[in-house]
Amino acid sequence: MSRTEVLSRTEVLSRTEVLSRRRLLGTAGATGLVLGAAGAAVGYAARPAEATPLTSLGADQVMFHGKHQPGILQGLQARGHVVAFDLAAGAGRKEAAALLRRWSETARRLMAGEAAQQDDTDVARDSGPSALTITFGFGHSFFARTGLEKQRPVALDPLPDFSSDQLDKARSNGDLWVQIGANDALVAFHALRAIQKDAGNAARVRWQMNGFNRSPGATSHPMTARNLMGQMDGTRNPKPTESDFDARIFVPESGSKDPAWMAGGSYAVVRRIRMLLDDWEQLSVKEQEDVIGRRKSDGAPLSGGTETTEMDLEKTDKAGNLVVPINAHARITRPDQNGGAAMLRRPFSYHDGIDTDGVPDAGLLFICWQADPLRGFVTVQRKLDRGDALSKYIRHEASGLFAVPGGAAEGGYVGQGLLEG
Amino acid sequence: MSRTEVLSRTEVLSRTEVLSRRRLLGTAGATGLVLGAAGAAVGYAARPAEATPLTSLGADQVMFHGKHQPGILQGLQARGHVVAFDLAAGAGRKEAAALLRRWSETARRLMAGEAAQQDDTDVARDSGPSALTITFGFGHSFFARTGLEKQRPVALDPLPDFSSDQLDKARSNGDLWVQIGANDALVAFHALRAIQKDAGNAARVRWQMNGFNRSPGATSHPMTARNLMGQMDGTRNPKPTESDFDARIFVPESGSKDPAWMAGGSYAVVRRIRMLLDDWEQLSVKEQEDVIGRRKSDGAPLSGGTETTEMDLEKTDKAGNLVVPINAHARITRPDQNGGAAMLRRPFSYHDGIDTDGVPDAGLLFICWQADPLRGFVTVQRKLDRGDALSKYIRHEASGLFAVPGGAAEGGYVGQGLLEG
Ligand code: HEM
Ligand code: HEM
Repeated sequence: MSRTEVLSRTEVLSRTEVLSRRRLLGTAGATGLVLGAAGAAVGYAARPAEATPLTSLGADQVMFHGKHQPGILQGLQARGHVVAFDLAAGAGRKEAAALLRRWSETARRLMAGEAAQQDDTDVARDSGPSALTITFGFGHSFFARTGLEKQRPVALDPLPDFSSDQLDKARSNGDLWVQIGANDALVAFHALRAIQKDAGNAARVRWQMNGFNRSPGATSHPMTARNLMGQMDGTRNPKPTESDFDARIFVPESGSKDPAWMAGGSYAVVRRIRMLLDDWEQLSVKEQEDVIGRRKSDGAPLSGGTETTEMDLEKTDKAGNLVVPINAHARITRPDQNGGAAMLRRPFSYHDGIDTDGVPDAGLLFICWQADPLRGFVTVQRKLDRGDALSKYIRHEASGLFAVPGGAAEGGYVGQGLLEG
Repeated sequence: MSRTEVLSRTEVLSRTEVLSRRRLLGTAGATGLVLGAAGAAVGYAARPAEATPLTSLGADQVMFHGKHQPGILQGLQARGHVVAFDLAAGAGRKEAAALLRRWSETARRLMAGEAAQQDDTDVARDSGPSALTITFGFGHSFFARTGLEKQRPVALDPLPDFSSDQLDKARSNGDLWVQIGANDALVAFHALRAIQKDAGNAARVRWQMNGFNRSPGATSHPMTARNLMGQMDGTRNPKPTESDFDARIFVPESGSKDPAWMAGGSYAVVRRIRMLLDDWEQLSVKEQEDVIGRRKSDGAPLSGGTETTEMDLEKTDKAGNLVVPINAHARITRPDQNGGAAMLRRPFSYHDGIDTDGVPDAGLLFICWQADPLRGFVTVQRKLDRGDALSKYIRHEASGLFAVPGGAAEGGYVGQGLLEG
């Protein structure tokens, strides 16, 4: 990997930040991130007479084609939609292949700032692509419906039940999954409608959720997002610069138990995790920090230092108690506490108004990526289920597991290796 | 009004656009908009060692104190929350006064990028104020509960029933109303929680809704937003440069039938208007344009020209038909078709996932501002109710009418003239 590639891959994992992106101009490399120079990219309907230069937010463009699908390595976007579809009765492999072809073409066009193939709604008109990414995945149930059981990865075997699960089946799983992210809410909504329209008679929406992250430029912090509990979240994500990054996150070209069509792909675990904010916010900052094992202000481990200082797992206070409590979330989720299990967390926060009694229906659309869910999410969640200090303040309400194939080649579509294999 | 004031007031009504704001540096004038120079404003917890300059998005700051409350004249923000509260049983004028004092102090602090008064959740930590505005209003029911009937404006008399209304009472009206807007979703959520926490035992959330607009910089279009039907929306809003702007939007210091405490205030009508997007999107662009009377691509009237060209109401085609149909929305809403009735529309789009059958629960959080609802919203909505071509594609699902007093003086709080009058 060349130096510029390493640099850009590190950067795109950080928050999509206007300044840092500008610095990257021209170093797209393996990530497929194309950077918007002011005025270089304009909305698909910008009329030259009126067009003023786009700021970087609108002009940021991610490539659709590439080794991996977009929406995994790119920085967190300000707005996100996840949507699951079930194939319609009577729709099989042929209809699914045609749908994935339509979807891929729509994704390619919209991510380039062009209009949809037909009947564009005009909702994104005048806007740049705003770092739009569209990502497609296949759920366990897809394979029986299409007669492709033989191609179903073992890794898609249903997640085990966890004792703390309170899952809503109607908002879990599904034949097909689409993740949409963009730094502009209308660009994201536009893409969602185009994807929905493309489904036509082939597939029906099963569930759909909305999320968000910080807007680029809202913070001066170069790296880590905050979640709705107020914590820095993402600090210890695997970094593309680490030598085992690819092996942890992506299915290799060969040598794994995955089917060939998953080469370059990844498995996404999606959990809608409600935060019990009324309870959480009653804790003192000290109590909150003990739950996580990191400082709330700056994300540093309670054993001291700054956000990036290595956590001292053995350090004790004068009374002989561990400084990072034994059940602290950031202690027990560590790869070295889980036989090396690791995942790339790339979540959105969600907030769907209020539930009963004015309590916000809010939390984390937890989305994590790994080469093998058993050596990623499942291992860690088993541990959390047994005694995470955070458990009292969260509730897993929905769940999905999806096989996300590698990126489409030019002229090809996502899942082609599966559907035409 | 001096030239710079006029300029800045025009500009702040336009979309909050990074470029246009930078141009305004130092021309805050009557609007109270303080502009962020890179690095000039930082999040309340930015640590100097790590702080890199904020881009304009985070640094944009709106003043809390002023003649009018914030959130009326400022440009549309990327994220919005509206929330209504009812006073708790037993809470009266005294508790309400204490609550408005707490709320005003929270609004002042948060809009300046500071932490909340107590138990800050840290969700906005590191972020700049991101053009945060917090606006407070009083509903009809507030006055009886606080023994302040004599101070209740006639303008708060309940809106008439409209034949097309399908209102959900539980999501309508309320004693108190708060509007929050910011260009960052975490900054807005943070403010919502702080406002909720301040309510304490004095008031309970009655309903709460979320909305959004374009992110600053997503589009090169300098002026007009689009809504989820894909139309340019806001073109013909009254402009602060027009001589009758203040008289139309704000309650005057004297000479109106309003109580003295409403001087400098405005009345907000809030309608949750569902868009029946599946029906709408089945129309051809031509049919959609006939519904509105303006071109979808650029907002120009169907009689020709550009977005700002005056509509020719009489123009006919060769067959003798009116080019702007007689029931076109943008024809029948015009002040000259409604005895001069006008309002300032400052909406958010909303999208709360899907309803039955995968249809999006989406539309317009229509918020309009006027000195007198009877000579603004009510007159126009009566007309729309009788024959707006748009009616078939929308559904009014919730409604609120609120008296929004003028801005607080330094050291004072919003509604002080009412609660201590
Ligand atoms: C609402 C639920 C959750 C919240 C608020 C949360 C929050 C956090 C925070 C604040 C950190 C420390 C900073 C960082 O390294 O990112 C962290 C670390 C981590 N969390 Fe979570 N988390 C949640 C759920 C989960 C779940 C469900 C899993 C996986 C099953 C998970 C896996 C991890 C991992 C692997 C780390 C990094 C550990 C390390 O390498 O040091 N988290 N989380
Ligand atoms: C979802 C519902 C609505 C949609 C999609 C919509 C859309 C539009 C559009 C596209 C325009 C033309 C561009 C412009 O001048 O902004 C317009 C104008 C206007 N609309 Fe609506 N509108 C809706 C509801 C309403 C309601 C409920 C009212 C008030 C009762 C209203 C009052 C107006 C006014 C006053 C104008 C400007 C007329 C003029 O001065 O030329 N609209 N609307």
